[in-house]
Amino acid sequence: MAAASNDLDCFVNPSSVAVVGASKDESSVGHALLRNLLFGGAGPRERKAGFGGPVHAVNAKGGDVLGQAAFTSLAAIGEKVDLVVAAIPPRFIPGLVDEAAAVGARGMIVISAGFGEMGDEGRKLQDDMVARAKAHGIRLIGPNCLGVLRPATALNASFSAKAAPRGRIGLLSQSGALVTGLLSYAERERFGFSAAVSLGGKADVDDEEMLRFLADDPETRAIAIYLEAFPEPRKVYEVLREVAAKKPVVAIKGGATDAGAKAASSHTGSLAGSHAAYSAAFAQAGVLQARTSSELAGWARALSSQPIAHGNRIAIITNAGGPGVLAADACGREGLALAELSADTKSALDKVLPAVWSHNNPIDVIGDATPERFEHALRIVGAAPEVDGVVLLLTVQAMTDPLATARAVERVHAEPTWTKPLVASLVGLVGTDVGSYLDERGIPELNMPEQAVNAMAALVRRGRWVARKPVDAPAMAKLPAPDLDKARRAAKEAQAAGQKNLDLGRARAVLEAAGIRYNRGGTAADEGEAVKLAESIGYPVVVKAVSADVVHKSDVGAVVLDVVGEDGVRAACAKIRQRVAQHVPHARIEGFTVDEQVKGTEIIVGTFRDPGFGPLVMVGLGGIFVEVYKDVSWRLVPLDRLDALEMIGDLQAQPLLNGARKRPVLDRAELAEVILRISNLVDAVPEIVEIDLNPLVITKSGLVAIDARVIVG
Amino acid sequence: MAAASNDLDCFVNPSSVAVVGASKDESSVGHALLRNLLFGGAGPRERKAGFGGPVHAVNAKGGDVLGQAAFTSLAAIGEKVDLVVAAIPPRFIPGLVDEAAAVGARGMIVISAGFGEMGDEGRKLQDDMVARAKAHGIRLIGPNCLGVLRPATALNASFSAKAAPRGRIGLLSQSGALVTGLLSYAERERFGFSAAVSLGGKADVDDEEMLRFLADDPETRAIAIYLEAFPEPRKVYEVLREVAAKKPVVAIKGGATDAGAKAASSHTGSLAGSHAAYSAAFAQAGVLQARTSSELAGWARALSSQPIAHGNRIAIITNAGGPGVLAADACGREGLALAELSADTKSALDKVLPAVWSHNNPIDVIGDATPERFEHALRIVGAAPEVDGVVLLLTVQAMTDPLATARAVERVHAEPTWTKPLVASLVGLVGTDVGSYLDERGIPELNMPEQAVNAMAALVRRGRWVARKPVDAPAMAKLPAPDLDKARRAAKEAQAAGQKNLDLGRARAVLEAAGIRYNRGGTAADEGEAVKLAESIGYPVVVKAVSADVVHKSDVGAVVLDVVGEDGVRAACAKIRQRVAQHVPHARIEGFTVDEQVKGTEIIVGTFRDPGFGPLVMVGLGGIFVEVYKDVSWRLVPLDRLDALEMIGDLQAQPLLNGARKRPVLDRAELAEVILRISNLVDAVPEIVEIDLNPLVITKSGLVAIDARVIVG
Repeated sequence: MAAASNDLDCFVNPSSVAVVGASKDESSVGHALLRNLLFGGAGPRERKAGFGGPVHAVNAKGGDVLGQAAFTSLAAIGEKVDLVVAAIPPRFIPGLVDEAAAVGARGMIVISAGFGEMGDEGRKLQDDMVARAKAHGIRLIGPNCLGVLRPATALNASFSAKAAPRGRIGLLSQSGALVTGLLSYAERERFGFSAAVSLGGKADVDDEEMLRFLADDPETRAIAIYLEAFPEPRKVYEVLREVAAKKPVVAIKGGATDAGAKAASSHTGSLAGSHAAYSAAFAQAGVLQARTSSELAGWARALSSQPIAHGNRIAIITNAGGPGVLAADACGREGLALAELSADTKSALDKVLPAVWSHNNPIDVIGDATPERFEHALRIVGAAPEVDGVVLLLTVQAMTDPLATARAVERVHAEPTWTKPLVASLVGLVGTDVGSYLDERGIPELNMPEQAVNAMAALVRRGRWVARKPVDAPAMAKLPAPDLDKARRAAKEAQAAGQKNLDLGRARAVLEAAGIRYNRGGTAADEGEAVKLAESIGYPVVVKAVSADVVHKSDVGAVVLDVVGEDGVRAACAKIRQRVAQHVPHARIEGFTVDEQVKGTEIIVGTFRDPGFGPLVMVGLGGIFVEVYKDVSWRLVPLDRLDALEMIGDLQAQPLLNGARKRPVLDRAELAEVILRISNLVDAVPEIVEIDLNPLVITKSGLVAIDARVIVG
Repeated sequence: MAAASNDLDCFVNPSSVAVVGASKDESSVGHALLRNLLFGGAGPRERKAGFGGPVHAVNAKGGDVLGQAAFTSLAAIGEKVDLVVAAIPPRFIPGLVDEAAAVGARGMIVISAGFGEMGDEGRKLQDDMVARAKAHGIRLIGPNCLGVLRPATALNASFSAKAAPRGRIGLLSQSGALVTGLLSYAERERFGFSAAVSLGGKADVDDEEMLRFLADDPETRAIAIYLEAFPEPRKVYEVLREVAAKKPVVAIKGGATDAGAKAASSHTGSLAGSHAAYSAAFAQAGVLQARTSSELAGWARALSSQPIAHGNRIAIITNAGGPGVLAADACGREGLALAELSADTKSALDKVLPAVWSHNNPIDVIGDATPERFEHALRIVGAAPEVDGVVLLLTVQAMTDPLATARAVERVHAEPTWTKPLVASLVGLVGTDVGSYLDERGIPELNMPEQAVNAMAALVRRGRWVARKPVDAPAMAKLPAPDLDKARRAAKEAQAAGQKNLDLGRARAVLEAAGIRYNRGGTAADEGEAVKLAESIGYPVVVKAVSADVVHKSDVGAVVLDVVGEDGVRAACAKIRQRVAQHVPHARIEGFTVDEQVKGTEIIVGTFRDPGFGPLVMVGLGGIFVEVYKDVSWRLVPLDRLDALEMIGDLQAQPLLNGARKRPVLDRAELAEVILRISNLVDAVPEIVEIDLNPLVITKSGLVAIDARVIVG
């Protein structure tokens, strides 16, 4: 293995290791640590399965542990110790840092708990420990962590009961137990890891640094993350963007539902960050967010072993109808398309398959399929330009030779002409010799057909991400030019005037300065002016009372819609005067607002400041759609034009945006521009806490804001 | 095993079996059949693992097969043969039926293909075969099928490579390959079946009969079905209703997505029925519809081994935070609630758990949990009245003793006071000795935490179904009394008049006769009558032109909304005259319709006749909601009041129905009554092909139909 080019190398490739707190007591962590370093795990005690370099036991009381004489201190070892793994009471740890420095250690893994998470006393100890480590140039992982597993060097510097099978997945988990759970799962399903790390209290080495290490680590092809909340989410997001540009990253966020969030917060003591913000961050950084732990594992397996798909057209090769149908259903659910086989492909298949083959995709090679038949079909489909990825299903029937079939599949897969992603399910055989035959050769083999398709979907999504190209800014003549300085001044003036929730006029001033187009309108002192204003705007218009005495205008009938013509304006004004007089007897009417009446599909664009991530921007269908169907999409600010277009594409209500029922069609470039302008505004004016452009109406001539809320603070 | 009380007993508990077509050729079906009967499967050749009764080989050429001398015919056996399994060319099958009768056979499994699915020739053979079997009183399974597996009698009368592990799941699969796939899966995950059957061409024994058999079968506790399409869906639905009243039934429908349906139709030659109709049938029959094969298996495992849950309040016991959080998230997704632990439960737990336990649900018994700690916690939670079901998670950490923990869990589970459903995940250990220790004792152990929760959700849903109680009809004074005879006459008159899509007046006549309330309105010959009509209705009203010459009234401005007052009505009529004259110069205006203008949340209620299931009824949110969010729910006609209420409950848009944004609140009893009336109408008047009440508006005074389409044919 090439040495990793940074500080964390000592944690995965140390020249020697010492366990401080190594104990005879088999139920102790110190015992498990030494056992794992010596023998790799809880299995048979063979030194050759353990870490290849020197492993020392240190116990203040000396004695014999697992057949080794324990040294009473690090110094007593009498030679350089590269990595120290500590499982002793916290009060001894700061002193141990000095001792580690004295024997030349580069790194220390602090397994012990009782630091930052245990109040002032613990925090003091932690600060002391970190200060000493910094002074000596020693890097720390922990405290309160499971440790580090690195199969490439047979290093199990953790108290996990299991060794990590070797593979290409770099696992970073906020839960140490989930690491051990996934190791058990991997052992059963036969996949593996380049590294498995639980950082615990992150007193020194943090998520950001470990992610950067995995991104540069030649052993790691895909990164899998379990998190409940990042301590500094914005910083992690920035790092994830960099990392996901280099390697595929999949993540599962515990606490994604209300129930889970409650569980997470009672468990970690830290508040699980808002689900929407995390999902936005993942989408924007190119991190694939899994819903379940088995999905996380399936995605990571595929991404760590197979090339990405350059499209979503999938071919299913199967020796049985039912599993093929279930895989096709799964394609539908995952947004994958069944490749339409070309005439060339079909005629090539005709030559190698029995006449009764399905003549369609799924390609049913029939129950009595020989290994050769699978091999031929796979080779043809691999060469078909209309296919972006292949899912191969083998159901063991009476006449099936699964191992020979697996070998045939591997033959084709190993040919230099083979370029497509391939995922298999040997239905029900995962983890058996046959299933693992494929896994060991880099073809992920999942248990059931739907899981294979689900894993393929990750390769398609990753492919889509990698192929993303920036979008140029279109000419936006219909929108006013933004003037952020002016917007900032308007916001500050409002703030100076003591406003938190800006009144309509001020909100409008801020947003118009930011380049948002409003419906036309104005304020008239009396009926005559209202008519003139209405004539200049064009009908229909909306007429409202201007009165400091009337709070809820609609409730008292001080709003009239669909007003047409001079008579109409006069009648509306008269109606308003009459109704206000009736409901609020002494109210003074200062005049009327007259506004262009705009009808069409209503959009909402809003922003929000997350305590962890900073400003976020949202787009969604307006009105009742937001409330009932939660049809919205979020991203972090700043974002680029392509992000904004993808947000629009996230919405379910595509038919409405595309002009269903003769509605005006959305100009997506224009909405993306509005999203960017609102984002630029909150980015440039930190005084703005929240914005809601609601509704923003899709009209024939473009997007028009009708109402908005701007909150400063 | 108690003998099953019907005809199909010979297929699961025969006194003797003969394989006709038993062959030396190891790659032949006939060879696999004999091997499976003699030795149970493709594993070691031990007669004691095979069927307990006599097993005969028959081959026209005689010879020696698998160490047995083959008889040249059934007659040559010289004794009674109870069950004949046939794998010979189809042309010999009808004759074989006679031979089977001569040796006293009660049943025959026809594995051979080449009958009804192969055109006229095959269909003739099949008719001949069935006619002879009927004449002799012999029952047939097949043709073109995998066969039957019955672990209780060690009967593997199939060509599956695997024996079925014994359990309590009765599996009926339209795909033989999926049976073999699920058997492999079961072997890996260690669960089992009471029977596994693939009926193939269903020339005699059909889905209905096999389902009734499984419903009465004392070996079977839960039924799992894979289907693509039922040949007679309505009949199967009726049987599923009966069966699901006795035992839990889970089903997966292949071809549920467009992609899958295409695959299914190319595979079976039969058109996969409409997804909505199947989903409606399952919901209404109490069948739980799974999305994936592993979900199907997980649900069947839980339902075949555990009691139902009497509520959705789940307790999670875990020795690790992360897996507990993921399980809690899964509860949120599955509609399960995390039980709120009572003060009593917490204080009982305080006594047996270390001080740092989570003090909340998930109940984190901490990483160093001993078997005793799990045992105590489980016993306390099992007795807690606020808990309806328990999910137990064990992550193997350094100090964990998984087998001893499994034993402790089993101890509590076996206590007579234990009554709640219990599902476990020993994260990553499924299929190992420890995992299967629980499975063998009736506690399903699933691989990852989310899968355990998913299985628990099936027990909750089944519990909800079992607890269903009929709902009484409320007084419905605000709706007109239905007169179905009158409605029938109106529909027939329209049909006689040559109408297919009824005009508004006729549609209204039919629906009003069926007891649907319309907005008030009528037709006026001129302006004067229009005013009188409007005054009698109350304002605002909608005025429209009546003119045979104007097809699209809205397009030419012949519809005026929001009309108020006498002047308003006159102005509206004048405007209509002027606009029509302008757009359709020679159009004759025969008068005006004047209708109560009704505003509010729009509902749609509709019916449709599915070719397989017959009439279905739908309810959904009206207008754009139907098109964009597909927020609708379907049931088969007839349905009961509770079904109708559940349909309303299926909709996502509950906040709208509950009066969000000051909208009128839906009277659910009234909407259920409308759904029933529409259903009764299409049930009583077969001439009606399709109805759309759209929109049906929720007003303060109840539901008012504004427009409707009635199609007869």
